[in-house]
Amino acid sequence: MIDNPYYSGDVHKDFELISIGRLDLEEGGAIPDLKLAVRTWGTLNANKDNAILIPTWYSGTHQIWADAYIGEDHALDPSRYFIVSVNQIGNGLSTSPHNTDDASISMSRFPKVRIGDDVVAQERLLREHFGIDRLALVVGGSMGAQQTYEWAVRFPEKVRRAAPIAGTAQNTPHDFLFTEALNEQIWSDPGWNGGEYASHTEVADGLTRHANIWAILGFSTEFWKQEVWRALEFESKEAFLDGFLRPYFTAMDPNDLLTMAWKWQRGDVARHTGGDLAAALGRITAKTFVMPIDEDMFFPVRDCAAEQALIPGSELRVIEDVLGHLGLFAVAPTYMPQIDRHLAELLATPA
Amino acid sequence: MIDNPYYSGDVHKDFELISIGRLDLEEGGAIPDLKLAVRTWGTLNANKDNAILIPTWYSGTHQIWADAYIGEDHALDPSRYFIVSVNQIGNGLSTSPHNTDDASISMSRFPKVRIGDDVVAQERLLREHFGIDRLALVVGGSMGAQQTYEWAVRFPEKVRRAAPIAGTAQNTPHDFLFTEALNEQIWSDPGWNGGEYASHTEVADGLTRHANIWAILGFSTEFWKQEVWRALEFESKEAFLDGFLRPYFTAMDPNDLLTMAWKWQRGDVARHTGGDLAAALGRITAKTFVMPIDEDMFFPVRDCAAEQALIPGSELRVIEDVLGHLGLFAVAPTYMPQIDRHLAELLATPA
Repeated sequence: MIDNPYYSGDVHKDFELISIGRLDLEEGGAIPDLKLAVRTWGTLNANKDNAILIPTWYSGTHQIWADAYIGEDHALDPSRYFIVSVNQIGNGLSTSPHNTDDASISMSRFPKVRIGDDVVAQERLLREHFGIDRLALVVGGSMGAQQTYEWAVRFPEKVRRAAPIAGTAQNTPHDFLFTEALNEQIWSDPGWNGGEYASHTEVADGLTRHANIWAILGFSTEFWKQEVWRALEFESKEAFLDGFLRPYFTAMDPNDLLTMAWKWQRGDVARHTGGDLAAALGRITAKTFVMPIDEDMFFPVRDCAAEQALIPGSELRVIEDVLGHLGLFAVAPTYMPQIDRHLAELLATPA
Repeated sequence: MIDNPYYSGDVHKDFELISIGRLDLEEGGAIPDLKLAVRTWGTLNANKDNAILIPTWYSGTHQIWADAYIGEDHALDPSRYFIVSVNQIGNGLSTSPHNTDDASISMSRFPKVRIGDDVVAQERLLREHFGIDRLALVVGGSMGAQQTYEWAVRFPEKVRRAAPIAGTAQNTPHDFLFTEALNEQIWSDPGWNGGEYASHTEVADGLTRHANIWAILGFSTEFWKQEVWRALEFESKEAFLDGFLRPYFTAMDPNDLLTMAWKWQRGDVARHTGGDLAAALGRITAKTFVMPIDEDMFFPVRDCAAEQALIPGSELRVIEDVLGHLGLFAVAPTYMPQIDRHLAELLATPA
């Protein structure tokens, strides 16, 4: 167990740790006492039909949703909906390699977790802790989109609407290799020491290189060409990297990132249908808006559109954002209005 | 000086090492005795107006041009043209960190070389050694395209036609960061040892990671999605990486790659015009076909098209190739017919 201020300090506020007990994992092994970090907004209505679930993305937590996506001025409006954001297993807030006090699964001993494990855990949490059997909407970005798809395929009767943003139902081979390259930056740092470091700061070099790979695929070529970082009040691309992207990742725990990455690489709803993606996506009964970002370098629109075409009654809603995948940070002033417009329309659709 | 069989064995045939004497460099310093590795095909005619120059790309040599681009069945036809391919400085065949016997510039002491230095050296070679004052065509891919642009801007009266393939006249910030990420894979390998290794095999880990970064930007997302490597007779993407891309790069010299990378990162014809790219490209009098590859992840068509729009009388000729940038290897059966069609048309254009 490592004390890392990024996860324990003022960065992440107002969440509750809820134990859901033992979680047996798809790959074998178990998390003996899984604690999920949960943030809620609003009130569950009497019919229990106004609940929205938000799973989190790689390196992310519920906090970005709190800061940018949720509010009375947004489609995700706590005055109308009971919104639950559940931090994914291994993200540093929920049970993770660096924060568990169970020595049998800490650090390098943390078991392999799959997207399906998260969704099973979330379903149990919602049912047992909140008494929620059906969701008005599941919405998530990137790995949150993977979990959204998993929900819609695994529990079709429980998901009325789905909005996967900038992510796929079946991870692509390019994405696998991209994620592996991210991992290699950590593995290759001698300070990582097979996962048995004393502080994440010992892996600062690897985490910095990891951030540098994000720089070239997380943002679009056009983000750099247009020097969009100037709008974020940086004076050079180096200042932007040193002042934003590198500190963002070097604050995090390497084993936590690796746990999420392993999961990301293997996201695949076709595991439910013997590898038949069309059959898996054909199960979806949720009204689904598939929302790729036009400049995304690793979840390109065409990959998302090909999946959307397999989902009954779904619609493709492309988000325009020169930032590319990391447009998910919602820093472009034109980003949230698009998200809100599509989510509001989706929520207004009978389902 | 290191013996590396990749550069000295049967891999690279039929070239001549030609000394052009001392080359003073734009960044200061000099290469006291620059030897250029040169391969020629065909015969210079009496008017000396049938010469074609081919500079080389990052990690490449004249050999790929010999194997795929040049022949009587191609536009680059040795029965009609005198074709000269000059290996770029630092590519492992021309004077390079690993192969120079001049201890003052060997290994970590090799000076910084710019695209302009290569072009100045090539101009001297052509004039003094071959008596060539004017070129029917300069054609190159990637860093070869950078050199092609440099030729057309620096020596407009000497270049009748220009065909930059999959490269830019002014390197983009995204490309800079991509190349830096490639470099970091080498720098972070303890075996690199500040450039003072005894064998490139000591840097095998870094070179492997370097290859893995190429995998995610050198090829397109669609190359991986469509499993195009199957057409190359591999059984899995891992087999393709282990059987092709990783051996390709791990055979090379790390310092040589770093020398080329530094040059690539700083390619910019606007150095001739105080930073004014439009003014620089406006100098070009060569009939120019700008030939980006549609699936290129780091020299995207729009970057090339923006430059093409600034070149008087030029044309944009987009090459379709699902491989992306590494389509330059000419493995797709549809690739060379496109290259040949455009180059034949360009060569047939009075200039």
